[in-house]
Amino acid sequence: MKIGIMGYGNLGKGIECAIKQNPDMELAAVFSRRNPETVKILTEGVKVYPAEDALKMKDQIDVLILCGGSATDLPVQTPEYAKYFNVVDSFDTHARIPEHFANVDAAAKENGNIAVISCGWDPGMFSLNRLYANCILPQGRDYTFWGKGVSQGHSDAIRRVEGVADGKQYTIPVESALEKVRNGENPDLTTREKHIRECFVVAKEGADKAKIEQEIKSMPNYFADYDTTVHFITEEELQRDHKGIPHGGFVIRSGKTGWNEENSHIIEYSLKLDSNPEFTASVIIACARAAYRMKKEGMAGCKTIFDIAPAYMSPLSGEELRAHML
Amino acid sequence: MKIGIMGYGNLGKGIECAIKQNPDMELAAVFSRRNPETVKILTEGVKVYPAEDALKMKDQIDVLILCGGSATDLPVQTPEYAKYFNVVDSFDTHARIPEHFANVDAAAKENGNIAVISCGWDPGMFSLNRLYANCILPQGRDYTFWGKGVSQGHSDAIRRVEGVADGKQYTIPVESALEKVRNGENPDLTTREKHIRECFVVAKEGADKAKIEQEIKSMPNYFADYDTTVHFITEEELQRDHKGIPHGGFVIRSGKTGWNEENSHIIEYSLKLDSNPEFTASVIIACARAAYRMKKEGMAGCKTIFDIAPAYMSPLSGEELRAHML
Repeated sequence: MKIGIMGYGNLGKGIECAIKQNPDMELAAVFSRRNPETVKILTEGVKVYPAEDALKMKDQIDVLILCGGSATDLPVQTPEYAKYFNVVDSFDTHARIPEHFANVDAAAKENGNIAVISCGWDPGMFSLNRLYANCILPQGRDYTFWGKGVSQGHSDAIRRVEGVADGKQYTIPVESALEKVRNGENPDLTTREKHIRECFVVAKEGADKAKIEQEIKSMPNYFADYDTTVHFITEEELQRDHKGIPHGGFVIRSGKTGWNEENSHIIEYSLKLDSNPEFTASVIIACARAAYRMKKEGMAGCKTIFDIAPAYMSPLSGEELRAHML
Repeated sequence: MKIGIMGYGNLGKGIECAIKQNPDMELAAVFSRRNPETVKILTEGVKVYPAEDALKMKDQIDVLILCGGSATDLPVQTPEYAKYFNVVDSFDTHARIPEHFANVDAAAKENGNIAVISCGWDPGMFSLNRLYANCILPQGRDYTFWGKGVSQGHSDAIRRVEGVADGKQYTIPVESALEKVRNGENPDLTTREKHIRECFVVAKEGADKAKIEQEIKSMPNYFADYDTTVHFITEEELQRDHKGIPHGGFVIRSGKTGWNEENSHIIEYSLKLDSNPEFTASVIIACARAAYRMKKEGMAGCKTIFDIAPAYMSPLSGEELRAHML
């Protein structure tokens, strides 16, 4: 299976690493909007091309992975490339998924391609676990906790505060809330009760730290509704202790069964990830395998992870899966 | 969707309870090998019929749930009933799944029916989580822990010991082993290091308790390879404190990503179940919905949970799922 990568940031690089771990795949080409000569990739013998050259390589690529952003790149790129390629994206603006699906579906169907959208872990594996748990326990409640992990959006928000040179924000689930959910107490939890936000901030020289801290803590949407702590550190400390992009979280459904709903059940799925983009890339690559196979079987159109029979994601045959994994 | 239940033990009763929780389903009939007059069910207005009358009701049943045992019932029943009905079973003899699949597949395909086998949590949801985790993290290790929960097979083994009037056995995962796995230490674990076995035994009057304890602890396959504790209690205590059928467990995959496998990830799925048969029944009922839909779309043959696109298991439409659950 020949894979193309469109966009070589953290996610694109993660895709490249994931391909290396899957012997049934090979990297065919990387496409970038930057000057290809400035883009250094890891795989020997594979070239970087200008994004606009992708169509020329249509016949040498089985699945094109779109690694752009959800805000402006993917809403345009995914429907466009789905005309020419099987594609996979990680579109994660939850509210706009129905619209994105419709646009991509039309393009993919018209051209007989498979397009898998919104792959990753949320949306993605977390969504999948919410779905399965809801199917199994129709009487119940869903809880999703994120973290401990780096929120890119919140880190960006910190860096926009006056006097801030650099910063990183961790989202951390509140352990006592998690425990209540695991115990089947079905608590009603406010935003503040579910997550805390921890900020590591490098202040510019001479900046008013008290003012920075106050401004961060009172920022609407991002921090005001949370218990937020702000630590001032040096740029060296930030680079040394906070350069990773870890993340993770918990999807829990607490439900009842029995004639009088007398029995309680807890289904919990959790992730603890050293590298958010590499894990997302690993999910995407499994979805790319599914896209390739579904296309081969004559299917077409836009799919989400809800529409993919799990066996399509595995390199093993049905016989092997039944014998060794069921 | 009209559901028939073949066999009314703990699992059959669980199916009946699950149908009550799913408004798109109704119970059409219960079939039993016992004298129908002695079988009392919970649903008003539904009748119990002799097992041999099932074929007469072929046109009034969309999916027949087979609630027999894996040792002798299902190897015969599932291929037989798959000729006339869409069926779902919970066949759980892992080693014989390939053979069972082949027999059922032939019967179902020849008659244009869908047969879903080996539904439940292990095989079932645990298998599914092993599969997804292996697809995402090809470089890694799988760990499955069971419990805390009642093992029927081990409880039966206790009751066969001379001098034992009654007994129940709990399988309990070793917490320190679980922690090592969660920490990404990838330990090699012996049988003894993974689970402990706790037995609650009611001795017959005058029985030699020391001899019973010794005999249980040294029983090959069942207990000899484990740290086993034996508690002697009264029949009243057994009835009061140990009448439930709880179970659960953990499926964990610990894997690496990155160009030099420098990043670690932990995927964990866990269940904490008050009632093993009711939870199994709830998975089966979601699979029954999938069977009904797949048949409607013209598919046929034997399927496992690996072959079912998750959306088929939900009562919601694709649009609803994308808008609210992705």
